[in-house]
Amino acid sequence: MSTFIDKLSHIAKKNNSLVCIGLDPDPERFPEGIKGTEHDIITFNRAIIEQTSDLTCAYKLNMAFYEVQGPRGLEALEATMHAIPDDIVVIGDAKRGDIDNTARMYAKSLFEYYRFDAVTVNPYQGTDAVQPFVDYEDKGVFVLCLTSNPSAHEFQHLKNEGEPLFLRVAQTANRWNSGGNVGLVVGATNGSALGDVRSAVGDMPLLIPGIGAQGGDLNMVVKHGLNSNGGGILVNSSRSILYASSGPDYAEAARQAAEELRNQINALR
Amino acid sequence: MSTFIDKLSHIAKKNNSLVCIGLDPDPERFPEGIKGTEHDIITFNRAIIEQTSDLTCAYKLNMAFYEVQGPRGLEALEATMHAIPDDIVVIGDAKRGDIDNTARMYAKSLFEYYRFDAVTVNPYQGTDAVQPFVDYEDKGVFVLCLTSNPSAHEFQHLKNEGEPLFLRVAQTANRWNSGGNVGLVVGATNGSALGDVRSAVGDMPLLIPGIGAQGGDLNMVVKHGLNSNGGGILVNSSRSILYASSGPDYAEAARQAAEELRNQINALR
Repeated sequence: MSTFIDKLSHIAKKNNSLVCIGLDPDPERFPEGIKGTEHDIITFNRAIIEQTSDLTCAYKLNMAFYEVQGPRGLEALEATMHAIPDDIVVIGDAKRGDIDNTARMYAKSLFEYYRFDAVTVNPYQGTDAVQPFVDYEDKGVFVLCLTSNPSAHEFQHLKNEGEPLFLRVAQTANRWNSGGNVGLVVGATNGSALGDVRSAVGDMPLLIPGIGAQGGDLNMVVKHGLNSNGGGILVNSSRSILYASSGPDYAEAARQAAEELRNQINALR
Repeated sequence: MSTFIDKLSHIAKKNNSLVCIGLDPDPERFPEGIKGTEHDIITFNRAIIEQTSDLTCAYKLNMAFYEVQGPRGLEALEATMHAIPDDIVVIGDAKRGDIDNTARMYAKSLFEYYRFDAVTVNPYQGTDAVQPFVDYEDKGVFVLCLTSNPSAHEFQHLKNEGEPLFLRVAQTANRWNSGGNVGLVVGATNGSALGDVRSAVGDMPLLIPGIGAQGGDLNMVVKHGLNSNGGGILVNSSRSILYASSGPDYAEAARQAAEELRNQINALR
């Protein structure tokens, strides 16, 4: 088993949680007192992490929200990495995908410079675009399979010999998973398709966005997503937790939202 | 017509060139005297730009090669942008793709912070992942269609009702192109498929990697790629130009390689 899977299993058990919190900082939505200050992002993230780190198995940092701030955003990203306790999985949600010599650069950047435990990658270019990430055997690689956005069906549901593209991606991910460090991104917004993916990939971890702001159904996610060990899902929530309150109690409100999500999932397991 | 298309047409005519030079700096391949110095990337890039800016219609900056260097890489990227003459198209080769609120962040980062004229995006998530880029009407958006890497066929050639995925992407790109600012990335490594794409998309600009180090056939590219105006292709070369010589004459050697490529393309037009 890979270090990544060990780490994920350990923290999911320790915190009794299948929740992944998406740290997607949007300074325009920050509460008064933080909004507009020099170190707004790291102040906000630190408060969220302090209030939620016993309730989550992973934090997912969406690179776009840091890159858009320029160098100060990437400094905030690094500071956020330092603020996260060592035993929690940290996912770099980068969705990178490029030819092999470029993919090696992205993998080096995300795994060696930023030191993420896992990343998200895009499968469109096939094996040689994914392999440089998978070659980091101690790290996790979540491949986009079936996404949670309204347009996901346009290409991902196209059928080849009766089989939709997202299932072909899932089956190909099985081949990429010889080192046991591959997972998939499967949106919460299509429960029965999630079940089809689970059937195709055994106990592989599934990173599941789309709960909350995007309207996914938690019952369907747990029913169709759990693996044979009663785990194997990381249910991501970003906005519903980060911005549960826009007032000075935002961090406590985030804790409450994270705890509710954790308990709802556990009640359904 | 979009500002992007105007700018591309103007510079392609002025420099009589369909060459795009990929500025993918790899410090390990830098010549002695630059290798290991504090400002190696910008020193190298400036020398390449000075020697080639009258021979190219575009520079393409692959984000991975800058991100992998951390903050100093992104500083070098910004300095490189400043070193490129204003009338040359600059493409941010980022291959981003994510749900709408995230795509807006990536678009803002690439178009507003870094001020690229055009970017590359990944179509896997469909319309709502591409639209936030296309909404910048003055900017160009090159959508990955058929890539140049060996594994490209795994998903891109899967047929739905007889039509391969890459052609479905091309046809969908026509729909995204209502503002006239969309192009496609089509690898040089499959000439006849390039012709199929050209037939599907009219005069849309095609960004064509895969010449040189990747082995694409220039005859096939020009034969199948040109649009009805005898243009509409950006033939990218990175390593074959940047590292044409590993000695102190690297910039002059880059000039020679770029000039040869320009002339070869023009002889075939």
